Amino acid sequence: MNPSRCAACRYLRRRCPPDCIFSPYFPPNNPQRFASIHRIYGASNVAKLLQRLPSHLRTQAADSLYLEAQYRIEDPVYGCVGLISLLQQQIHDIERQLAMTQAEIAFRARHPQAVEGNLLNNVGNPSFSNQASSWFM
Amino acid sequence: MNPSRCAACRYLRRRCPPDCIFSPYFPPNNPQRFASIHRIYGASNVAKLLQRLPSHLRTQAADSLYLEAQYRIEDPVYGCVGLISLLQQQIHDIERQLAMTQAEIAFRARHPQAVEGNLLNNVGNPSFSNQASSWFM
Repeated sequence: MNPSRCAACRYLRRRCPPDCIFSPYFPPNNPQRFASIHRIYGASNVAKLLQRLPSHLRTQAADSLYLEAQYRIEDPVYGCVGLISLLQQQIHDIERQLAMTQAEIAFRARHPQAVEGNLLNNVGNPSFSNQASSWFM
Repeated sequence: MNPSRCAACRYLRRRCPPDCIFSPYFPPNNPQRFASIHRIYGASNVAKLLQRLPSHLRTQAADSLYLEAQYRIEDPVYGCVGLISLLQQQIHDIERQLAMTQAEIAFRARHPQAVEGNLLNNVGNPSFSNQASSWFM
């Protein structure tokens, strides 16, 4: 039993060779990291993927594979594609809010009397924003 | 040779059984879909993942696995984690822009004389936005 075996070789119950492809990215003190990756991709697919990359990019690849594996374990149906959809929806919502806010500014600049004194109350009021948007967009 | 074998069984050069786990999600007319998934996850890992899910969720799972595999083939270092970082940065940028635009509205409402006649020119001007932000945020 070699206490310096990496997490992958411990998990796979094998000797950890000096040129182990997993060793630099799966330290023995974090067995969960390899277990997650192994569960989703399998050890040989991860080894192949790392071997195809230049060594200075392998840490980032191991990190991103681990993250994707975690997303897939937490959400076996959508994995990190679920998070991507959520972020895209969030971008759409904020862009819409930004467009409405810019329309308010344009409206206020063109009609200073129309909303004077009321603007502070209207900022963030969806019905006012929608009205302003319909005028200027 | 059975022409109705699914893309997975064709790829794996095996008989396609009536209860094939891949068949409903990997039709024979789209061989690339299974080839991508097999390259990243391996057939047995995909089969295991699909088998663990109720059948009404397997189409979505096969679709999201295919998307993730495509991202990983296009970007072997970051996969779809690269896209997640990009979207998070985009959200941060739009939120900042929205905060500055809201600060402009608040400024205009409190100081109608200060910017009257100049607001239209200042909308979207970063130096004005930064100035307004520093006053009100």
